[in-house]
Amino acid sequence: MDKVTAFFGRIQGLADDDDALDFTFGNPHELALPGLSDAMRAQVDPRSVDWFAYKSSERSAQEVVAAGLRDELGLAFEPEDIAMTQGAFGAISLAFALFADAGDEVVIPVPGWFCYEPMLRAANLIPVRAALDPVSFDLDIDAIARAITPRTSIVVVNSPANPTGRVYPRSAWEALAEVLEEASRTHGRRIWLLSDEPYRRIRFDGVDFASPAASYPWTVIDYSYGKVLLAPGQRLGYLALSPLIPTEARGELRDALFPLGLAIGWGFPDAVMQYSVPALETLSIDMAELARKRDRMYGALVDAGVEVTRPEGTFYLWGRAPGGDARSFCDALEARGVYVMPGALFDQPHHFRISLTATMDSIDRAIPHLVEVAAELNRDAPR
Amino acid sequence: MDKVTAFFGRIQGLADDDDALDFTFGNPHELALPGLSDAMRAQVDPRSVDWFAYKSSERSAQEVVAAGLRDELGLAFEPEDIAMTQGAFGAISLAFALFADAGDEVVIPVPGWFCYEPMLRAANLIPVRAALDPVSFDLDIDAIARAITPRTSIVVVNSPANPTGRVYPRSAWEALAEVLEEASRTHGRRIWLLSDEPYRRIRFDGVDFASPAASYPWTVIDYSYGKVLLAPGQRLGYLALSPLIPTEARGELRDALFPLGLAIGWGFPDAVMQYSVPALETLSIDMAELARKRDRMYGALVDAGVEVTRPEGTFYLWGRAPGGDARSFCDALEARGVYVMPGALFDQPHHFRISLTATMDSIDRAIPHLVEVAAELNRDAPR
Repeated sequence: MDKVTAFFGRIQGLADDDDALDFTFGNPHELALPGLSDAMRAQVDPRSVDWFAYKSSERSAQEVVAAGLRDELGLAFEPEDIAMTQGAFGAISLAFALFADAGDEVVIPVPGWFCYEPMLRAANLIPVRAALDPVSFDLDIDAIARAITPRTSIVVVNSPANPTGRVYPRSAWEALAEVLEEASRTHGRRIWLLSDEPYRRIRFDGVDFASPAASYPWTVIDYSYGKVLLAPGQRLGYLALSPLIPTEARGELRDALFPLGLAIGWGFPDAVMQYSVPALETLSIDMAELARKRDRMYGALVDAGVEVTRPEGTFYLWGRAPGGDARSFCDALEARGVYVMPGALFDQPHHFRISLTATMDSIDRAIPHLVEVAAELNRDAPR
Repeated sequence: MDKVTAFFGRIQGLADDDDALDFTFGNPHELALPGLSDAMRAQVDPRSVDWFAYKSSERSAQEVVAAGLRDELGLAFEPEDIAMTQGAFGAISLAFALFADAGDEVVIPVPGWFCYEPMLRAANLIPVRAALDPVSFDLDIDAIARAITPRTSIVVVNSPANPTGRVYPRSAWEALAEVLEEASRTHGRRIWLLSDEPYRRIRFDGVDFASPAASYPWTVIDYSYGKVLLAPGQRLGYLALSPLIPTEARGELRDALFPLGLAIGWGFPDAVMQYSVPALETLSIDMAELARKRDRMYGALVDAGVEVTRPEGTFYLWGRAPGGDARSFCDALEARGVYVMPGALFDQPHHFRISLTATMDSIDRAIPHLVEVAAELNRDAPR
């Protein structure tokens, strides 16, 4: 956590530095979508006395989300299966509260999102790391199987994956489902799968998306509108119970969504954001432009001899630092006013992450620096 | 928790029943303040590329809050002492994360807000109840002293108090401070005071407000704009570190506000709400009208021979059920379409709570029913 906070603190000043080329966090670098402002503006005037009363999950939002999930995933989600939350953070907190007791273990992918661990610690849960394949960053099903113990209550997966940009195929989920079924049987305890899908709609080249919810019934999905709208400062997301969860268990979970949502700190989104869901459901940043930015940056790095994982989704581009030491790479870039995220934040000291939410102009200005620094470090590296 | 959820579920339908006279939750029964919509409308259009980027605590909001606290409490709050949160729920969650470890005990007032307990349980903390004076509902300092053990990390106080409407004087806080100092010394561990002040600006008859922050240095204050704006569906509040906390300890707390705010589920308010703080800081529901509603309802109940605590603040009116059994009282009222909150939600089966957020018209229509039911139950009661 300390390294995330320290990095965040160091990077915060960049917003005020017009010359900085900032590729760190998945934050917007262009004005927000007009459709977002339009949607909110349409909801700020009260139409009833309870317009801004305490809101749990608004029925209209639940219905839109369930319909969207039915279309996208081909599973029969029902509105009652949806808990509206303050972004994916809120949905993940709710999932931890639903399925884990203090001291339980939760398996997370490495490299993976740097907030799983501090969130687990704050919830008095124990993060257990399961490494992805170190070259392809494919899901390593055996590593997950080895990470599971009798104290495991949840396994977290993330596709499209931060920071690697990988999107996993259905076959991976089928294999994972077998492992989770067997481990649940072995340990006499149901292991739940939390599918962290905030980047579900951020995919390139028409790559298929498969949710593990279709392969393993005991799955819940967290989602955030903060990615597809590139507006994480307006919190909106949900936790969805898979309709494949057996009826009785699903009924108990439905009943727990309100009291636990309250108990974790009234984790429901603002009224205006919930009312905006129908308008926001089909809104998206320009995916064609994002794909062009990926192509430009990916192509330049490959041409410069940098090992990069070709992103199938997400905002991110994951690479191995020229010379092998990401700290040196990042420092050399920072000296030139180019900021990328060191892999140390993901416990991968040899790697770096580039956010493609920067503008095309920033990418064009940064590429010569990236190429030159890569050349310097590759020249200096021991062979 | 179950009784709160069950009651909430049963009452939710009332919003759609125009004939129901609903005095249960502190929810709005009239259109929201135009100033709230105006404030939000002025912030929905982005003025910079990071307008809707990830927001922690916005400096402009922190400055307004700190200045307001300096004026109200006469203490030298600094902007860095303020963590903006999603209402008081978020601020309380943050305080628990700051000061308590799993298994710690937290002392709460009884009768008191019915969400302290489920929130503590969700945070793996142990609620320990300290009864208020059973007649005056004054703070019972000895009861708090008795509730403290070597495992106590936090004592929670609430003034103006839900559900009793009491506002405690400085002398009470001075006495409490002595107890907390001595207990901290005895147990070799600093006991923190969480002052839950969402109703701080909801006071009647010019009654003075004293915050315990002025009496006990080791105090943090949680606040919500959801009460004074009567708009709890738009989450906005804060946790404020007392400037009297010694410098080194305060510095450590300041450093923890961001990482813990992140870890509990990105507990920062939406960008639009943070930008609205300067406009919202001086906005309020009509306190003169609320005082008239209090007078009307209080007077009618006193005239009907009902024992009622005269509210000095909050939305609430706390009384002893005619006949002594709040369940019978509430049931008899519900049969007439009048809904009040049974004291069982506060572990006080002989009492009831009335929310004065209902309209004057509803109050006028409900009073004859309250008077008749009181007369019936008083007649039937054993003498």
